[in-house]
Amino acid sequence: MFRVNVRDHIMIAHSFRGEVFGPAQRLHGATYVVDATFAATELDADEIVVDIGLATEQLHAVLADLNYRNLDDEAAFAGTNTSTEALARVIADRLAERVQATNLTGITVTLHESHVAWASYERPL
Amino acid sequence: MFRVNVRDHIMIAHSFRGEVFGPAQRLHGATYVVDATFAATELDADEIVVDIGLATEQLHAVLADLNYRNLDDEAAFAGTNTSTEALARVIADRLAERVQATNLTGITVTLHESHVAWASYERPL
Amino acid sequence: MFRVNVRDHIMIAHSFRGEVFGPAQRLHGATYVVDATFAATELDADEIVVDIGLATEQLHAVLADLNYRNLDDEAAFAGTNTSTEALARVIADRLAERVQATNLTGITVTLHESHVAWASYERPL
Amino acid sequence: MFRVNVRDHIMIAHSFRGEVFGPAQRLHGATYVVDATFAATELDADEIVVDIGLATEQLHAVLADLNYRNLDDEAAFAGTNTSTEALARVIADRLAERVQATNLTGITVTLHESHVAWASYERPL
Amino acid sequence: MFRVNVRDHIMIAHSFRGEVFGPAQRLHGATYVVDATFAATELDADEIVVDIGLATEQLHAVLADLNYRNLDDEAAFAGTNTSTEALARVIADRLAERVQATNLTGITVTLHESHVAWASYERPL
Amino acid sequence: MFRVNVRDHIMIAHSFRGEVFGPAQRLHGATYVVDATFAATELDADEIVVDIGLATEQLHAVLADLNYRNLDDEAAFAGTNTSTEALARVIADRLAERVQATNLTGITVTLHESHVAWASYERPL
Repeated sequence: MFRVNVRDHIMIAHSFRGEVFGPAQRLHGATYVVDATFAATELDADEIVVDIGLATEQLHAVLADLNYRNLDDEAAFAGTNTSTEALARVIADRLAERVQATNLTGITVTLHESHVAWASYERPL
Repeated sequence: MFRVNVRDHIMIAHSFRGEVFGPAQRLHGATYVVDATFAATELDADEIVVDIGLATEQLHAVLADLNYRNLDDEAAFAGTNTSTEALARVIADRLAERVQATNLTGITVTLHESHVAWASYERPL
Repeated sequence: MFRVNVRDHIMIAHSFRGEVFGPAQRLHGATYVVDATFAATELDADEIVVDIGLATEQLHAVLADLNYRNLDDEAAFAGTNTSTEALARVIADRLAERVQATNLTGITVTLHESHVAWASYERPL
Repeated sequence: MFRVNVRDHIMIAHSFRGEVFGPAQRLHGATYVVDATFAATELDADEIVVDIGLATEQLHAVLADLNYRNLDDEAAFAGTNTSTEALARVIADRLAERVQATNLTGITVTLHESHVAWASYERPL
Repeated sequence: MFRVNVRDHIMIAHSFRGEVFGPAQRLHGATYVVDATFAATELDADEIVVDIGLATEQLHAVLADLNYRNLDDEAAFAGTNTSTEALARVIADRLAERVQATNLTGITVTLHESHVAWASYERPL
Repeated sequence: MFRVNVRDHIMIAHSFRGEVFGPAQRLHGATYVVDATFAATELDADEIVVDIGLATEQLHAVLADLNYRNLDDEAAFAGTNTSTEALARVIADRLAERVQATNLTGITVTLHESHVAWASYERPL
């Protein structure tokens, strides 16, 4: 199995609903350093999984719709908790729609929220 | 598959038995930066894999029993080599006893022993 | 010159006023991974600059007043831009009030806002 | 599953053929920080996956044949694109020939080409 | 003293002249992860040292003239060794010409050439 | 000012004397990831501060006398606390004796003891 990873980041505000979240129920924010990892069982004719430049552009385009926003005000997240793991799934699903190639078999999106915590979502393509 | 990771560290002394270990047969020590990664196929009702605060507390509690100790003197490790990979299993098994949730499917514990080496143990829950 | 550094983090929401900030004028947020670096020309009687455990506690106490908050709603920041560099100064000044020791000569606080950007403030003690 | 990772690096020149590579069609270069990860379902008699010292030596020996070279001039790569993912496979295959142990089940080689991009190849042993 | 840092990277080929360089006298290459650090004694009217977006653009513009090139073929470096420290000075000097602001007092450019080595050049503005 | 940094690591056991150290008064250990930073106001005839290969060898030689040891048993440290900052000075002083060059003006040694703490010592040459 081959994998290729590209990295970018977003800076958002949000709050959580649920006692488990304690002080994170207040409006706060996060920088998410975002890794998008593409998997393939075979390389394509150019001997790559996906072009790193293209993957970087597509990840940046997906993140542009989230960056510098208060996620509590976004219709797409109404009634949901934008936890790190839930956001990882949203970004992976949106990226999957954009990066189509016959050799790609899966995608993993990892959001690093600090130097001590991250969450990820892995799905087939 | 969703994953959530939390990080902490311990500082221990130990020695190894076996010629393969060379100078590491002498009493020495290590800082282990410890990552505990929780896996789940579905998010829970709060839309998370596990609360990051709770996971951090549980990892810290498991590590407290190892931290600032000479592992050569610990009854739990009598007659064994406390290699990085063996310690990863001990920590994963102890953590598995503490973090029970119906949505969790697995746990991986990774011990970074320097900027150039790490070991991990992955097990189902 | 000796230096000792400890690290913690905060997750906050805020917005900026001024055209130079572009989309960051919207309410958004950040994780700041915070390094507090203490400088001393001589070690104390215990042969340290400052106890790492004590420094960690004091940094955590200072950050607790900022963590999981919308800085736009904090009276302490009314009418100001909570830029990364301005926050670094606030944290350094608050920490300076708490960590008093005759051997300490300076403190630097660095806020890492992503994998590609940070700001710091250095002051004498 | 147990895993052990060791790290080293190489500094090489190369160019790519194919319009998808854009400016990377010109002769340029890269530092690859190389992680070699060994997997085993059981520990050996010394309670390790593989000796970290031995793994480090073997990785270094494999990388010595690539380091400080223009890969465009190497016969082994004639007519191929030495993409990060293709190089990961070459290094994994060469390492697999050198590190034979009955307990080892797989190897993954990851090449970090910058702070924002990496590629890897995972194979059974 | 306030400081603000932004990061980018380049991938170049080059060779060195001089026996001290050993195998690095051969044509090889490097990824340089480049940090540009701006220093100021006072914040400007927007309460910043320099806009992080602007600093990122200026650094990217300076690096664009070096990226994906064989430095041995560049007229600007004829007859010189493009050592990591010498390149740090070139980038700092070119950046100094572009980023002029009355509050800025200095700039440091750091080139990380691997996980174990970096070089930097610090100059007044 | 130019600077060049090389990195290596040691794994040692030790204990501390003094109530301020709390549980670290017990025999424990640490991995120290060690950065040695050399400063020069001018580059030498090869256009470098110091050869990175040479600096790496000299740092490794200094660390070899400390690596895989219980520092409580070393005569050189009898009656002293081998705090991170005190060890940084020892390593800097030993390195200063080995790396003599007319262009070098200073050396800083930084010991990273975990992902959240480090100490350093800076001295002239």
